[in-house]
Amino acid sequence: MTFLEKLQARVQTANSLLCVGLDPDAAKIPNGLSYLEFNKAIIDATAEFVCAYKPNSAFYEALGPSGIEQLKATCDYLHEHYPELPIILDFKRGDIGNTNDHYASFAFDYLGVDAITIQPYQGRQAVQPFLDHADKGIIVLCRTSNEGSGEFQDMVLDGTGQELFRYVAQNVAREWNSNQNCLLVVGATYPQEMADIRRLVGDDMWFLVPGIGAQGGEIEAVLKAGGRHQIINSGRAIIYASSGDDFAQAAAAEAQRNRDEINKYRS
Amino acid sequence: MTFLEKLQARVQTANSLLCVGLDPDAAKIPNGLSYLEFNKAIIDATAEFVCAYKPNSAFYEALGPSGIEQLKATCDYLHEHYPELPIILDFKRGDIGNTNDHYASFAFDYLGVDAITIQPYQGRQAVQPFLDHADKGIIVLCRTSNEGSGEFQDMVLDGTGQELFRYVAQNVAREWNSNQNCLLVVGATYPQEMADIRRLVGDDMWFLVPGIGAQGGEIEAVLKAGGRHQIINSGRAIIYASSGDDFAQAAAAEAQRNRDEINKYRS
Repeated sequence: MTFLEKLQARVQTANSLLCVGLDPDAAKIPNGLSYLEFNKAIIDATAEFVCAYKPNSAFYEALGPSGIEQLKATCDYLHEHYPELPIILDFKRGDIGNTNDHYASFAFDYLGVDAITIQPYQGRQAVQPFLDHADKGIIVLCRTSNEGSGEFQDMVLDGTGQELFRYVAQNVAREWNSNQNCLLVVGATYPQEMADIRRLVGDDMWFLVPGIGAQGGEIEAVLKAGGRHQIINSGRAIIYASSGDDFAQAAAAEAQRNRDEINKYRS
Repeated sequence: MTFLEKLQARVQTANSLLCVGLDPDAAKIPNGLSYLEFNKAIIDATAEFVCAYKPNSAFYEALGPSGIEQLKATCDYLHEHYPELPIILDFKRGDIGNTNDHYASFAFDYLGVDAITIQPYQGRQAVQPFLDHADKGIIVLCRTSNEGSGEFQDMVLDGTGQELFRYVAQNVAREWNSNQNCLLVVGATYPQEMADIRRLVGDDMWFLVPGIGAQGGEIEAVLKAGGRHQIINSGRAIIYASSGDDFAQAAAAEAQRNRDEINKYRS
């Protein structure tokens, strides 16, 4: 079963496009829980409302080996208890081909995740070792959610009439996707650009959409701009919905509210 | 002491622009040595000929926590025995600001390295948490050494007359570098582009130059194109110069040969 098959099955079963970002931060986790304990509680409380989980590698790496162990244990917990739920490792890697094999090994062999995020800057030939994993989802940064993302992404390229982010989208859709395993990162904070990308790549390609919640993206605008093939991620707004003993129930309530709000605007 | 001060002191003392990439790979390491044992032997044999070491994070991450532990132990070994030698962590990270703080924490707090490589695609505002580490070297991907790197990097931007890689170089030099801690990654395999970048950013900005050796970059061409402010990296060609018991001596001989070859063309 490929990532996209697993994702689409789960989207249907759970009736959800919501992905929860598992980005634990010692400064925000209540009661001195470990990252693993916190993640387990969040997962158990929110699983029924989500189509995927997305741990961001940075938060675990900051702790050194013990953080990586907890990331692995989180993936193992999902594999064991929620095998139908795909895991997206948000690690935004990109290097020369020889080196990317080792990043792929971390994600797919060691952690056993279903999909990864990658950087486009070095071009297709560099990331071919990722693309060659035909059963995995390869999610390419296209239009990112951060302020100032236009510094390079919005520059128009001579002879194409397209901004860099649209040219990336087009190349990924036309030239990188021979294994039908590519997706695009398109930030919720830029719905106009999202609509442009959707027109360009057609209705079938899935987007991973960060920026809802803490970053300010609006669900209605995102659904109108991006259509029904979107994994809509929310991290901090859900997992830190409460800093008290009720953090897991508060996360569940916020996840349910997000899922329902998304479904209101799904076509 | 900032990274650039430490680097320049070492360049002078060792009379070397050579950086050795510490990219251990179980398939290539002789005698069943661990990554740490291999690195220690390589470091002890080559230190006198180098201005810096550059471990690439991917090779360690592929092993999971034990790899990260060996990366940390390698950095500790350098701190203890070769404190005058700067460490460049080649991890090519880039995310939104909030997340980059955690990557910075891995590099600077946990490992204690002196410099890192980062991705430009999300723009300056996203990587400001890296740039704010004024005493560290922040090395931005500009023109990478891989085949196919021109897919986006060579596209000319409307209204600038510049390819993307030159626009990145210009923005880094003019707008990202207020702490005087930025460097650029410029691949040895593209000396013409390197000469363009050097003209654009002036003589003072340091380049990190991968692509010598296994990737085919030529030392003479690189020195002519890039001038004297270059950290010239060689990884596989040095650390795997022999697969026998004499691997460390062979690495030392190859490092010395590289340093001397570089010095022949230094102006």
